[in-house]
Amino acid sequence: MRLSQYFLPTLKETPSEAQIASHRLMLRAGMINQTTSGIYTWLPLGLKVLQKIENIVAEEQNRIGCHRVLMPTLQPASLWQESGRYEAYGKEMLRFKDRHDREMLYSPTNEEVITDIVRQYVKSYRALPQILYQIGWKFRDEIRPRFGVMRGREFFMKDGYSFDIDYEGAKASYEKIFQSYLTTFRRLGLTAIPVQADSGAIGGNLSHEFQIVAPTGESTIYYDEDYDQLSDQDMTLERLRNMYAAADEKHDPFQCPIPQERLKTARGIEVGHIFYFGTKYSKAMNLTVQGPKGELIIPEMGSYGIGVSRLVGAIIEASHDDNGIIWPDSVTPFHVGLISAKADDAQVEAAATALYQQLATRGFDVLYDDRSERIGVKFADMDLIGLPWQIVVGNKTIEHNTVELKNRRTGERQDLSIEACLTYLQKHIDV
Amino acid sequence: MRLSQYFLPTLKETPSEAQIASHRLMLRAGMINQTTSGIYTWLPLGLKVLQKIENIVAEEQNRIGCHRVLMPTLQPASLWQESGRYEAYGKEMLRFKDRHDREMLYSPTNEEVITDIVRQYVKSYRALPQILYQIGWKFRDEIRPRFGVMRGREFFMKDGYSFDIDYEGAKASYEKIFQSYLTTFRRLGLTAIPVQADSGAIGGNLSHEFQIVAPTGESTIYYDEDYDQLSDQDMTLERLRNMYAAADEKHDPFQCPIPQERLKTARGIEVGHIFYFGTKYSKAMNLTVQGPKGELIIPEMGSYGIGVSRLVGAIIEASHDDNGIIWPDSVTPFHVGLISAKADDAQVEAAATALYQQLATRGFDVLYDDRSERIGVKFADMDLIGLPWQIVVGNKTIEHNTVELKNRRTGERQDLSIEACLTYLQKHIDV
Repeated sequence: MRLSQYFLPTLKETPSEAQIASHRLMLRAGMINQTTSGIYTWLPLGLKVLQKIENIVAEEQNRIGCHRVLMPTLQPASLWQESGRYEAYGKEMLRFKDRHDREMLYSPTNEEVITDIVRQYVKSYRALPQILYQIGWKFRDEIRPRFGVMRGREFFMKDGYSFDIDYEGAKASYEKIFQSYLTTFRRLGLTAIPVQADSGAIGGNLSHEFQIVAPTGESTIYYDEDYDQLSDQDMTLERLRNMYAAADEKHDPFQCPIPQERLKTARGIEVGHIFYFGTKYSKAMNLTVQGPKGELIIPEMGSYGIGVSRLVGAIIEASHDDNGIIWPDSVTPFHVGLISAKADDAQVEAAATALYQQLATRGFDVLYDDRSERIGVKFADMDLIGLPWQIVVGNKTIEHNTVELKNRRTGERQDLSIEACLTYLQKHIDV
Repeated sequence: MRLSQYFLPTLKETPSEAQIASHRLMLRAGMINQTTSGIYTWLPLGLKVLQKIENIVAEEQNRIGCHRVLMPTLQPASLWQESGRYEAYGKEMLRFKDRHDREMLYSPTNEEVITDIVRQYVKSYRALPQILYQIGWKFRDEIRPRFGVMRGREFFMKDGYSFDIDYEGAKASYEKIFQSYLTTFRRLGLTAIPVQADSGAIGGNLSHEFQIVAPTGESTIYYDEDYDQLSDQDMTLERLRNMYAAADEKHDPFQCPIPQERLKTARGIEVGHIFYFGTKYSKAMNLTVQGPKGELIIPEMGSYGIGVSRLVGAIIEASHDDNGIIWPDSVTPFHVGLISAKADDAQVEAAATALYQQLATRGFDVLYDDRSERIGVKFADMDLIGLPWQIVVGNKTIEHNTVELKNRRTGERQDLSIEACLTYLQKHIDV
């Protein structure tokens, strides 16, 4: 993509309304634009990241045999009256009437709709277990939206729902998702700690939140210091089963099973939440299936969420420096940023354009800064938007056929011949 | 995908509420489920098709240099008051107040939000032309939703917006999109006729609807019989420029430039609509850019829509038979349907499973009907869901190492060795 033709409105000033790094950087990097309080338009750069995260989340769900559906944002109140939540839910739920005066709502979550679907089609225990998920937009009318996409009102979320014929099945589904979430977050370049949690409004007795440690987190979490020693490969359900980690509302200092000196406290950003809640919805909504002997079984359910739009902010909170964002390879909007150091010099411009073509031929997604801006502006913008690799084409390219390759995370720079640079990138980037 | 583990709730009975083929077939093929009037949940098979269409539409937009954004579904009334449409729009617009009593709406279209974005960032003529698009969910509170996803209330649409500094530029953008739409619809396996149209509520003076000829269409269109002779390759802007085609509201028999005997009348399904509307929104919302001499220019705009969820229905209307859907290759939810004719026979089952693996290795996306259902049920379901190729593994596979390959569109069947079948499919399917 040639930057001169792209839509990347970076800002030099720090927007005054943004209190945390991710919000500031997303606004400055031209990723989002606030349409109204807690509601954003995703600009091209932001949307690319959002879609990459969406794809990784979907791939990991599909890998473990979940099936993707898409439920509507607007739903009839009647379904929510069946579960009892239409009255119970607070002002976060947006309620309204349609032109025929029917009560409706904008979905904040989807236990009712998915239970309604399963009860219409699933009649036999043979069709279970089943895990259905969607990735879609939801709305919660937060009283004080803040932190950009981290606590917005309209947000993009993966929500999944498991249906099993008994507790053992439900527990197996829960653990399958638990393990899959560890993989998902790892692929996103994040270390997420699964902490025991009260399941709050949704109700139930088995629940974990997945928390990213970050000073700007809204939750307090308590966890065994051993977590900090775990390699990514060690983050397995088996390994974690006996390690302590709890959310604030669940942690009781007098009941804590590990000694005080091993207990760490940190701020966390919740990026996932899983619940087992038994027959709460299936019972209320009359979902039954026939068992092997013709008996009626009320399926056991769980629900599983990942905050996809929130993750964009969470990843930035976990990975940035004073100059801007540092994208993990898996979600970077472009693989490489290419800078023409002298856009007005025909030779440099020609060399940069030739390299742009060569990179494209090798399958790299490249953002080519071909603008006639000062080089300082180009460097600052490139650092700000956080692509993992930057290539500078300049006088040296003309004189010695070399380019400068910079690693955004380490800051390390090397002069390489064009061929060596291409070879290096092919070794370091998965396209 | 093994059908025994999938979520594909096909229906034997024809749902009584469905009046047209696509609505009936989408319900029967387990593609959608009605959540409430005019509002649907997309089940796994339907969602796969919807996403394939979305991807093709996005690819063709990106190819011509449009940039993808995503605007929120909920928008503040204030923006729509600036354009004057908040009052002008009828009951199709869903209006409500949030918890702070602020007036909001569920977006039926996005001229206001996109103009607001461009006016915030684009200050110079140098940043134009620019075409921004999104593919997102919209809501129009139709008084009588019907025909399934063809006239639903919550629907998925591509909407794009062009910004140019003068009429010539705007016309060039319009023609670029026009040509791109022809390619898009052709890739979807459709022949869309661009008919001159009044631009109705949106206002303006240059407008085309893209219509698929189908007996169940809601519009009447008039067109030169030469259209029926055009090959796909001949459907270019240059060629069409002088051929007559008009929507009902635009066609005037007394002004028609072609002789009566060459004029054809047909029913059409509108799948795309493009408008040029000049400075209507840019003027109302104070969007200006600085010209080369420092003068203020009010950009000229156009908007361009494709009904993505509607297209699922339109494609089925254009491509089905008495037994079910017949998917064009480009949007089929799976490339191949594999049927084990005797699921209870261990040898047949093993042969089918082995072939399933071989097909997967070659990159084919296969739906493998491994259920212990009667063979008649399997054949009927496979015809219903409309995958282009069906392979039957049965006794002959065990005895002669052959399978039956059926072309869903022509009905043609051939017995082929497994190797020959794989080779044949590799030649006929783009993976």
